[in-house]
Amino acid sequence: MLLLCNAVLLLQLLSPCTGLSLDTVREFLTREEDTIVFSLIERARYPLNRPAYDPAYLGFGPRHNASFAELFVRESEAVQSKVRFIHPRPAGRYQSLLEIPFFAYRVPFTMAPPFNFTSELYPAAAFVNVNDAIWSAYFNDLLPLLAKNDSDDGNYAVTVDTDLACLQALSRRINYGRFVAETKFTGDQQQTYTSLIQSKDRDALMKLLTSEAQEDVVKRRVQKKAVAFGQSITLDGPIETDASNSSQAKFKVDPSVVYKLYDQWVIPLTKQVEVEYLLHRLD
Amino acid sequence: MLLLCNAVLLLQLLSPCTGLSLDTVREFLTREEDTIVFSLIERARYPLNRPAYDPAYLGFGPRHNASFAELFVRESEAVQSKVRFIHPRPAGRYQSLLEIPFFAYRVPFTMAPPFNFTSELYPAAAFVNVNDAIWSAYFNDLLPLLAKNDSDDGNYAVTVDTDLACLQALSRRINYGRFVAETKFTGDQQQTYTSLIQSKDRDALMKLLTSEAQEDVVKRRVQKKAVAFGQSITLDGPIETDASNSSQAKFKVDPSVVYKLYDQWVIPLTKQVEVEYLLHRLD
Repeated sequence: MLLLCNAVLLLQLLSPCTGLSLDTVREFLTREEDTIVFSLIERARYPLNRPAYDPAYLGFGPRHNASFAELFVRESEAVQSKVRFIHPRPAGRYQSLLEIPFFAYRVPFTMAPPFNFTSELYPAAAFVNVNDAIWSAYFNDLLPLLAKNDSDDGNYAVTVDTDLACLQALSRRINYGRFVAETKFTGDQQQTYTSLIQSKDRDALMKLLTSEAQEDVVKRRVQKKAVAFGQSITLDGPIETDASNSSQAKFKVDPSVVYKLYDQWVIPLTKQVEVEYLLHRLD
Repeated sequence: MLLLCNAVLLLQLLSPCTGLSLDTVREFLTREEDTIVFSLIERARYPLNRPAYDPAYLGFGPRHNASFAELFVRESEAVQSKVRFIHPRPAGRYQSLLEIPFFAYRVPFTMAPPFNFTSELYPAAAFVNVNDAIWSAYFNDLLPLLAKNDSDDGNYAVTVDTDLACLQALSRRINYGRFVAETKFTGDQQQTYTSLIQSKDRDALMKLLTSEAQEDVVKRRVQKKAVAFGQSITLDGPIETDASNSSQAKFKVDPSVVYKLYDQWVIPLTKQVEVEYLLHRLD
């Protein structure tokens, strides 16, 4: 027991100097929902444009197995990581810990001290992210539900630019699980978290950080946002407030798809990030 | 009169094989309003971040007079214009006539026949655009009204990425004036337009294509969209439908700024594009 208390004291001394609170975390997550819904609606303007995701269409031969979408994201990330410092500030996208590239090995590494966001995370756990799982879920599962239809209009760069916006918003939201976990860990259950981390008990950690009531609120709220933001606004017509009351209303992205996105991917993946982060929180 | 009739006949023969109608034009412009409002709301997440727009901060010396924002847009446009062909389709952003780069001289020119959008515009007039005016109005006039506050959080790449989304949406909308003008020209007033073009009567053209009642509808509709899309949605609260009825509601971007954007810049610049296009419509 003394050992545990000492460990907790030591951790508090080593802890990041955090400005995080449950309120700021919730505020970020709630605001990011709007960004995610906007980005989904924008992707839904375009058809599937399948060749953009098929490496065969670039014709680089069997040894180059990248699709147009992959090259586009890689090169965009490289641009967004450039010009890393503008006196007296770091400026590149990935110097904020909120932003994690999908192709990290392509993004110029900076030796400079990272930006002030860093202080909000425990350094040894800050690397945790699930971008590979986000990439796979987005292209394999979500995209076919989002695209306007299954056709091909040739507008690949414009279309994939909207994919990138979706990916970046989802990545920021899901990998924000690190900040969520830090806040929970430094809250009033630190001793419970500490012992579960020491025993590497993933299932118990997952259970401790799960609130089904809160998850239900989030899922129904994002569905409502898809209704509010995805309807066709006319000057004289009402603003729809409920998908179930407006069978004739046509939404730009199906509100039930947004519910499903949060239910099947966003919330489970965020919790996966939280658990992984916690498992490194005493490293 | 015979000469005029012959001219009109000849024009009809030379005319682009257009799938445009007043309905498709209106549908595009209405949908693009949503994209513009989303992009403004996303820019409003971030503070002004002034150094990103000040060439002095890059420290390239007096002969390199580009800001971080300018470099970022240039390089992003270059990426978006790349991989121009994916068999059997052109894929680069600027092969669609809907998209016009801000730094055209930086974007690789393609000798290939342009994409099918081309057929909707009269080739000799398709080049018309006001991107320079959009750039200037955006950074000098609109941005200070949009940014969350006047501070500097160092997130320059993320912030300027949202500027780019605003610029691209505004450019697409305003330069769509070419499509609007083509539709008006090929409508039932073609002889009137033809004689005004031949006499280069800008003022009369401007008057002919102006409908104040329609402009008023558009301005009030985009303001309503800023209310619908920019409010904080809660699960239990109502969805706000009217800015004037909800003095306590806080919108992510001021609906009156969106009204002003359309009133002072979007609509006048679109009409400028229409007039310029028409003046080249008989070339």
